Amino acid sequence: MSRVLRVAAAQMGPNQRADDREAILARMIALLEQAARGGARLAVFPELAFTTFFPRWPLEEAELRAYYEQRMPNPAVQPFFDRARALGVGFYVGYAEVTGSGRRFNSSLIVGPDGEALLKYRKVHLPGSQEVREGQRFQQLEKRYFEYGDLGFPVARGPEAWHRPVLGMLICNDRRWPEGWRCLGLQGVELVCIGYNSAAYDPNGGEGESAELRTFHSTMAVQANAYFNSTWAVSVAKAGVEDGSGLIGGSCIVSPNGIVVAQAKSLGDEVILADCDLDAGLHGRAPGKMFDLGLHRRPEMYRRIVEQAGIEAPP
Amino acid sequence: MSRVLRVAAAQMGPNQRADDREAILARMIALLEQAARGGARLAVFPELAFTTFFPRWPLEEAELRAYYEQRMPNPAVQPFFDRARALGVGFYVGYAEVTGSGRRFNSSLIVGPDGEALLKYRKVHLPGSQEVREGQRFQQLEKRYFEYGDLGFPVARGPEAWHRPVLGMLICNDRRWPEGWRCLGLQGVELVCIGYNSAAYDPNGGEGESAELRTFHSTMAVQANAYFNSTWAVSVAKAGVEDGSGLIGGSCIVSPNGIVVAQAKSLGDEVILADCDLDAGLHGRAPGKMFDLGLHRRPEMYRRIVEQAGIEAPP
Repeated sequence: MSRVLRVAAAQMGPNQRADDREAILARMIALLEQAARGGARLAVFPELAFTTFFPRWPLEEAELRAYYEQRMPNPAVQPFFDRARALGVGFYVGYAEVTGSGRRFNSSLIVGPDGEALLKYRKVHLPGSQEVREGQRFQQLEKRYFEYGDLGFPVARGPEAWHRPVLGMLICNDRRWPEGWRCLGLQGVELVCIGYNSAAYDPNGGEGESAELRTFHSTMAVQANAYFNSTWAVSVAKAGVEDGSGLIGGSCIVSPNGIVVAQAKSLGDEVILADCDLDAGLHGRAPGKMFDLGLHRRPEMYRRIVEQAGIEAPP
Repeated sequence: MSRVLRVAAAQMGPNQRADDREAILARMIALLEQAARGGARLAVFPELAFTTFFPRWPLEEAELRAYYEQRMPNPAVQPFFDRARALGVGFYVGYAEVTGSGRRFNSSLIVGPDGEALLKYRKVHLPGSQEVREGQRFQQLEKRYFEYGDLGFPVARGPEAWHRPVLGMLICNDRRWPEGWRCLGLQGVELVCIGYNSAAYDPNGGEGESAELRTFHSTMAVQANAYFNSTWAVSVAKAGVEDGSGLIGGSCIVSPNGIVVAQAKSLGDEVILADCDLDAGLHGRAPGKMFDLGLHRRPEMYRRIVEQAGIEAPP
């Protein structure tokens, strides 16, 4: 039987710091409805989808606290969860999580078409700095506002209605680290969902990387890692000028061959769709094939990957 | 002081099984001379550069034995080594190695401009099968004819004349395995040399991958891994129709930004050149930057990479 799942990438334009939650939820619900009309069974939303990308600001605790969700769902996101269940569309969404004991994570969730949570993930590769960098117009304070994810790189099977794909998640900067992808690949992942907020340029001047180069990097990272791990990937931006800071778009759906089969054209709210044949990855990873991991990998040669974090260069 | 090294990718057209060593060496020497005229200080040659890609054939021991080099250099390659030293051009070259005790490896060597060997590598990711596959016009018998490389992923610094770059090597299929690249990246590699022989299509029919798709994969794998590890890479084909089996071209020189700065246009003997600013990688890996490995990697989350070889999927 054919295992074709229609997925949507629900790219979002910017969430301004001044936007209220209701306005953001209304846009997200409109994207859900558009995805449903297009026949999608799973819609992938960005990282920190319910808020502005607040790690760009040094914040007082009172404002900061308001950006975190104490549980999922909760009254401030319930209309989005309700509408998704009514439409029979599942989703991936990124959000700022605070636990009962006050621990904070940059997290994501996959929810099935019945409204039940299928899988949760906490971002492992937090970029930026812990300390506020003086004299900069914008910060990148993820290391200050979040703990490193402590759940590893978990996978779960989706429901029968989705043909039971092995689902995995990454968040933003994770997509540039092949280690995370490989941990998913080693669990037979068939569809990786990714949300991101990625600066379109250095808002503090200096590095000289264009938005085009950064979009190229974003897309290439997903293409190559999807190919190496014989998996589909859906990589979704919050895009446009958010609180004066530019974010790249380029949301894309990528096949296990590393081919971009759909890509967003705007920097705003935009739904793109693709039919993902979940058995397409078998071509690469089947017994005896190029990416038959068990046949070709040599783990005893890779110990450096887990035995050191940073570079140890020869003298 | 600027650390710019001009490198050449010395793509080779096919070596037919009937070609004698002298004819192959003459072509390789012509490529060396062209690289030297172009100002290159280092020329990268393909995998198994001195012979046909013999793992495509089930061979009797008498013929097979003739494809391996007992030491490097030896009389059958000496004119190539001599000419390189006379030109002051170093090189990477792939060859079939047999040790004194009869062990066989798919190996490569980097030789400095003074003719001294700088670094040796033995291919870790051997594709193909150990057993002859019945009914196939062409085999892929690397797992039969070679042992898995036992040297890990070593690096060495090049000479002062090259601005002392940290050099690493991969061979062919290795370029598709991010584990090997990361082991080099963790040693501060600045220039990765790669030779390959990659089928342009399935010569036995079946898979339906075009030469264009395979060339795309070959190039993308190098681009993405160069970017992830903030390193230059020179990836060089033996190309064209060799003994009736098509090989892709697409030899390329790739920057630490993952940009192809030079790419071969033919499927024959062809030299391409690029000036590699060895400090360009610092942009990515410098303290606090996106690819500051020590700051951002979480090795405790990657244990699966060394603790299992193949896929363990959820039920």
